[in-house]
Amino acid sequence: MKKIAILGSTGSIGTQTLEVVEQNKDIQVTALAAGGNVQLLEQQIRRFRPSLACMGDEEKAKDLRNRTADLNVRITAGMEGLLEVAREPQSEILVTAIVGMIGIRPTIAAIEAGKDIALANKETLVTGGHIIMPLAEERNVRILPVDSEHSAIFQCLNGENKREVHKILLTASGGPFRGWNREQLSKVQVEDALKHPNWAMGRKITIDSSTMVNKGLEVMEARWLFGVAMDQVQVVIQPQSVIHSMVEFEDGAVMAQLGVPDMKLPIQYALYYPERKYLPGERLDFTKLKSISFETPDREVFYGLELAYRAGRQGGSLPTVYNAANEYGVAKFLQKKIPYLAIVEMIESAMEHHKTVEQPGVEQILEAERETYEFLESRW
Amino acid sequence: MKKIAILGSTGSIGTQTLEVVEQNKDIQVTALAAGGNVQLLEQQIRRFRPSLACMGDEEKAKDLRNRTADLNVRITAGMEGLLEVAREPQSEILVTAIVGMIGIRPTIAAIEAGKDIALANKETLVTGGHIIMPLAEERNVRILPVDSEHSAIFQCLNGENKREVHKILLTASGGPFRGWNREQLSKVQVEDALKHPNWAMGRKITIDSSTMVNKGLEVMEARWLFGVAMDQVQVVIQPQSVIHSMVEFEDGAVMAQLGVPDMKLPIQYALYYPERKYLPGERLDFTKLKSISFETPDREVFYGLELAYRAGRQGGSLPTVYNAANEYGVAKFLQKKIPYLAIVEMIESAMEHHKTVEQPGVEQILEAERETYEFLESRW
Repeated sequence: MKKIAILGSTGSIGTQTLEVVEQNKDIQVTALAAGGNVQLLEQQIRRFRPSLACMGDEEKAKDLRNRTADLNVRITAGMEGLLEVAREPQSEILVTAIVGMIGIRPTIAAIEAGKDIALANKETLVTGGHIIMPLAEERNVRILPVDSEHSAIFQCLNGENKREVHKILLTASGGPFRGWNREQLSKVQVEDALKHPNWAMGRKITIDSSTMVNKGLEVMEARWLFGVAMDQVQVVIQPQSVIHSMVEFEDGAVMAQLGVPDMKLPIQYALYYPERKYLPGERLDFTKLKSISFETPDREVFYGLELAYRAGRQGGSLPTVYNAANEYGVAKFLQKKIPYLAIVEMIESAMEHHKTVEQPGVEQILEAERETYEFLESRW
Repeated sequence: MKKIAILGSTGSIGTQTLEVVEQNKDIQVTALAAGGNVQLLEQQIRRFRPSLACMGDEEKAKDLRNRTADLNVRITAGMEGLLEVAREPQSEILVTAIVGMIGIRPTIAAIEAGKDIALANKETLVTGGHIIMPLAEERNVRILPVDSEHSAIFQCLNGENKREVHKILLTASGGPFRGWNREQLSKVQVEDALKHPNWAMGRKITIDSSTMVNKGLEVMEARWLFGVAMDQVQVVIQPQSVIHSMVEFEDGAVMAQLGVPDMKLPIQYALYYPERKYLPGERLDFTKLKSISFETPDREVFYGLELAYRAGRQGGSLPTVYNAANEYGVAKFLQKKIPYLAIVEMIESAMEHHKTVEQPGVEQILEAERETYEFLESRW
């Protein structure tokens, strides 16, 4: 019996993780944490019977306690609760499907408690890769990527020697605005940006995918996960989303992972690694797949990607600023308070304004985030 | 210092193997064998200084002895010589780049002597897979495929569990007559068939590639190399020859190996496995590669492929008949004695005429080959 805990169980990755658990009979869910969806977390508790659960705040925790009074589950709240879920003594793997910087502390706590991490929280490595990766190595803990691109790269590296990696080819669908120019982008409305051609995802990540900021964050994550330099990660647009990413080795061989767009594959792969298990669902059919094409991203039009390389190369606290400014910008755009292109303009101005701190600790990372929000609030 | 012996050192794979040796400074060539090219073998001996060499017959061996009288090399001839090269005491790997059934005995001898096999001789597994694979397992010897497709599959299986393989997707360029109908094929001349769109290879294999008999032989090889059923191997036409083959696992993930068409990669990979080393040469450039396409082979027009599945499913001595009839047919076609489509007609009639022997020994395999030649000579 494999034992897992999930941070962010009511979100897109969280619910799909529980679908994977449901399809397999040998995973026990020991703890669940959700931000605000009391009703869904109650259902999940009834279905998966964890002994511990956590809500975003005490008020919601109280509500959940009342709803689950008939069950043998302890309900906690807030950061203390998240840390408890992360360290839940029985669990072997923590799935970090929570969104935002709030994921960093619990991830560190879980690593310190010796749990493997099924990583779906982007911010963890983007902002704290320099803390997380050495700590995981020290504690002999696996960081198992859940993102489809990073899982693909991880699969390509299976059985390979990381020192023989020449570069990582991170694929991108290019999003709904692939091939557009800045003039066209300037007119994008919220509704346009929420349409992703291949993947069904949350709102924030769908916007990030349309700006290619998502890809920028993934390049930064890849850099930490696979121990390469930023410029060893090349973004390749592959509009059909059939190739989920590739690795080129020293000898020129390129290994790729292909599949239908289904997050359950990388989720299951992370939970059972190195074992592969039968996964119900659609398969790639090469008798029907006519062709797959490749394009080079336009880093002038999709300037957020260019800025990610700058932030990643500089490192320190700058990737935190990149991420925080994007988070702020996307929120404002979704509230229809700023135009589409202002998201990336915000990132650039916040990066320019910031004085990079080298090797920031968690406090300094959170401070850089706060400063970025304050700067953008005062400025925009 | 890695020590290797090569059977067929003056052929296409043999000379490319020596190019790989030349590019690396840590491989010692202990023995070389060639069929008839005395001059080139002399050059190779002068360059690589093996202590043992073998020519196809005694007359040529004598010639070579005279030419290399100033060198410290012992020259042998014929099957006895091949067996000596195969068993050369110092060598760790035998590269079987020799063409034809003549490769079987030396391969068995090398396995029995505990040498790893860098396998480029198709006939070995097609006709004797049921002997070779259990023997290699018993002697704890590696069979390292040199063919680009099988090397790709081997690379896709790196770090994976073979029991989790769902199917193998063996790619094919489709050859120069892809998309043609039988009417068009009936007019093919030797010169047409010798033009391969992507790979520079020997004459026999270029014809085999045009009829897709080569792919049929590869499916049979794959079945033995990777321990799957014939019908778990699906041929996928990928005309640009960028994807060298793929494996689909139980969970739906497809791993693929991509690269430029260069045999030096699979050769070097086999020699250094599991290590990858820098290999000079062109790289896949995804900024220039526009697209890769997929087609399903037409097994009615390219009927040789259909016959391969039949021969492989039936097994026993039938794959030997398939291979021998093809060898005979291609030779006659290259001599312009039969039309193009008669190659595959010969295979079919020889297969129909043959009474399959289950689990044939080496003698019975060679006997089935002789019988096939005799049948075709008497009949055509």
